[in-house]
Amino acid sequence: MDSSREKVKHASKTSKQMLIGLHIGNGYGSQQGAWRMPGVDPKSYTSYDARVKQAQAAERGKFHFIFLPDGPGAALTDIENEAPSFNLDVMLTLAAVARETKRIGLVATGSTTFNEPFNLARQFKALDVMSHGRAGWNAVTSSGDAVAANYGRSIPSSEERYGRAHEVIQLIQALWGSWGKDAWVHDQESGQFAKRDQILPINVEGKHVGSRGPLYIPPSEQGQPLIFHAGGSPNAHELAGRFANAVIGAAFTIEDARAQRNAFREAAKRYGRDPDEIKYIPGLMTTIAKDRRTALDRRIKLTERLFPQRVVYLQQMLGIRLDLNSLNEPLSKEQLDAARPSPFDPRSAHALKIAKEGWSLRDIIAHGVIDYHPVIVGPGIEAADHMQAWFEAGAADGFWISADVDEDGIDAFVDEVVPILQERCLFHQDYQGKTLREHLGAPDQYGTDPRVSTQGKGTMEE
Amino acid sequence: MDSSREKVKHASKTSKQMLIGLHIGNGYGSQQGAWRMPGVDPKSYTSYDARVKQAQAAERGKFHFIFLPDGPGAALTDIENEAPSFNLDVMLTLAAVARETKRIGLVATGSTTFNEPFNLARQFKALDVMSHGRAGWNAVTSSGDAVAANYGRSIPSSEERYGRAHEVIQLIQALWGSWGKDAWVHDQESGQFAKRDQILPINVEGKHVGSRGPLYIPPSEQGQPLIFHAGGSPNAHELAGRFANAVIGAAFTIEDARAQRNAFREAAKRYGRDPDEIKYIPGLMTTIAKDRRTALDRRIKLTERLFPQRVVYLQQMLGIRLDLNSLNEPLSKEQLDAARPSPFDPRSAHALKIAKEGWSLRDIIAHGVIDYHPVIVGPGIEAADHMQAWFEAGAADGFWISADVDEDGIDAFVDEVVPILQERCLFHQDYQGKTLREHLGAPDQYGTDPRVSTQGKGTMEE
Repeated sequence: MDSSREKVKHASKTSKQMLIGLHIGNGYGSQQGAWRMPGVDPKSYTSYDARVKQAQAAERGKFHFIFLPDGPGAALTDIENEAPSFNLDVMLTLAAVARETKRIGLVATGSTTFNEPFNLARQFKALDVMSHGRAGWNAVTSSGDAVAANYGRSIPSSEERYGRAHEVIQLIQALWGSWGKDAWVHDQESGQFAKRDQILPINVEGKHVGSRGPLYIPPSEQGQPLIFHAGGSPNAHELAGRFANAVIGAAFTIEDARAQRNAFREAAKRYGRDPDEIKYIPGLMTTIAKDRRTALDRRIKLTERLFPQRVVYLQQMLGIRLDLNSLNEPLSKEQLDAARPSPFDPRSAHALKIAKEGWSLRDIIAHGVIDYHPVIVGPGIEAADHMQAWFEAGAADGFWISADVDEDGIDAFVDEVVPILQERCLFHQDYQGKTLREHLGAPDQYGTDPRVSTQGKGTMEE
Repeated sequence: MDSSREKVKHASKTSKQMLIGLHIGNGYGSQQGAWRMPGVDPKSYTSYDARVKQAQAAERGKFHFIFLPDGPGAALTDIENEAPSFNLDVMLTLAAVARETKRIGLVATGSTTFNEPFNLARQFKALDVMSHGRAGWNAVTSSGDAVAANYGRSIPSSEERYGRAHEVIQLIQALWGSWGKDAWVHDQESGQFAKRDQILPINVEGKHVGSRGPLYIPPSEQGQPLIFHAGGSPNAHELAGRFANAVIGAAFTIEDARAQRNAFREAAKRYGRDPDEIKYIPGLMTTIAKDRRTALDRRIKLTERLFPQRVVYLQQMLGIRLDLNSLNEPLSKEQLDAARPSPFDPRSAHALKIAKEGWSLRDIIAHGVIDYHPVIVGPGIEAADHMQAWFEAGAADGFWISADVDEDGIDAFVDEVVPILQERCLFHQDYQGKTLREHLGAPDQYGTDPRVSTQGKGTMEE
């Protein structure tokens, strides 16, 4: 408690507070086995009621946004045991949520590689209007032959994909800006529906894509949707630095996260932007329970089916032999002495640290040392401490949270983590604004450039 | 009333009843000027509340479906005075309506020309699941350079467009059928999520499009969405005859409608189908009021701004000179004698018939003699009589209704026309089933062929 009070003091010195988003995927949760947990509706995969309930839980917790990843390439090889990872369709989910929530931001992935730009522009702007200014587009490039195969092609080169992505974002922002801020008059008295001279064709023609425009959609309460990006390559830094208001990140250590955040901030500066305009938001996975033991047992129940393959993988991470028949035993002194964290897996050092604490092999794995993001398995204060440490180290502007089981894991975060963050003045008490742009403190934007009206300019650079 | 009773007798002899759909477009109504009418929310264009209310009104009237046309090509040349014709985005509108209605079918246009087939397949199937089996896809080809320009291309040839359309529909139906009927088990006890041997790649590769699949979406309560088509060319007959459960038609006379209906039925037969499996549904526009005079005055209030140009057009239809300054006068005997209905406009004979009834020039135009479909301007019984006459003449299996002003025009149809049709046993008293497939009496279908499971077959013909 003393250390916690100390942190309160520290945090309250700055006015900056962290952002929090919620990952919404297949309706069950981010851990395999979630669909079989007690109390979970086994039909959540096709249930829009479930998604709405999850978003409402996040809104109760004052989360800034929900985030729906997408990437239609999975071959469904484990469909016998597990649900696909994604929403049936991200835009239809967000449409349902938009109608049944009030404040929370609505962010979904939309591929710049396998979509007609005009269609993407239209759907995200329509969502933005429908939600009264709460939409964000996670503009990514698709990679992997599996995705490409569903579109009947092979995957373009990275250069090709990012070249197209730069054009698609500019084209879409130009379409979004094709109605001037005050173009829509709808004055029944005078009969003026809109100002025609403020609704202009965009007439852009790039190397990869083009469009005449205008779009048919007036500005929303926030003007136009925000741009998110996800990725960590130099190409991603450039694309996000140029366009993105926020980055959906993935980093396992404070050092890596800080380096990523700085890379995005430096890229933003190269494009003449204030680096604070780009928020770096790494992921965090949570199993929140009253104590560590209860949380570990919950993880074991969820994912024990996968432990044999994870033991094999942990061997590689630590560079030692492990025995599947000794799941209940801690690693021996000989094993711990021989262990060398793999330089090829950024999770290895953390795995060894947990092993050295003396947990059994089963419990080591149950700590989530092999997962897509850092994992908190324990009481809410452990999540709060992690988030505060990263936030104050300049490693994150916020976090996107993946609950282990959506049915009760989101509520656990809202009830057990959020109040601690609020008490420490690290997280807002309530929404201050109504739009996603206000939630993120992003500048107003109409068209392709935040600082200049580009209406009717018709240019585009790869 | 005697003639009405006679009709009741006649209609009750057959068990067949007509289908009714409602056109939902820009939120105001199908008549220009609707947005300025008293009681109309001038922001309906961006209001999903308005669309939901309209769909709920149609559901109160037991309409079989709502239909949302689309075709993003308009240059917005009249935006100073009038709203664009379409929804901001048809799929987001249907998502909102799906969550806030129970029975009514949900049909939208989706272009086979300017969409990635995998994306179309995914959105319509997700809508079908979300609505518990109420989705229909109006699969059309896009035409017109204006649409193509928004996608940065020129419009393909008709042969190219229809060749692609045949492939796109097969590919999408194959994706829809890529989960077998009972593939999704979700048995928490046994841990079986789905039957992998019933979820198969489609591996289709055509001349225009291809996909590996499978889709990620299990069957809905109706299996998969229905196919609609709109168009009247020989190409349209072939495409619809092969695939469509219903045709969104446009015809001005019983004779033309009957010929169209027969052409679609004959085409269905050529593909080995029962011709009753394809429903021909022409459009009808309505201004319903307590009497003809009140209805005409309502139309005049709505569209009087356009009368000068319509007088010019009417001159061409009738082959005579008309005087803009004599709007309040009927046509003279000389004018009527000289009039020759234009063979190039199928509305001309009806226009001359109205003129000969002695209405003023203003009232002739207010009868809607120049509009996209037959127009009823009068009390509900006139609409019912029109619909009965067409239905019993074999010219229509139903109608899609465009109300003049959505705000009160839909309710007027529901309250003034529907009860008469029900009394005459021409229209159902209530929904008998829950899915759109049940509403239309369409056979079950999983995959590309209604009679054969085509799972994993991997073939496609242009």
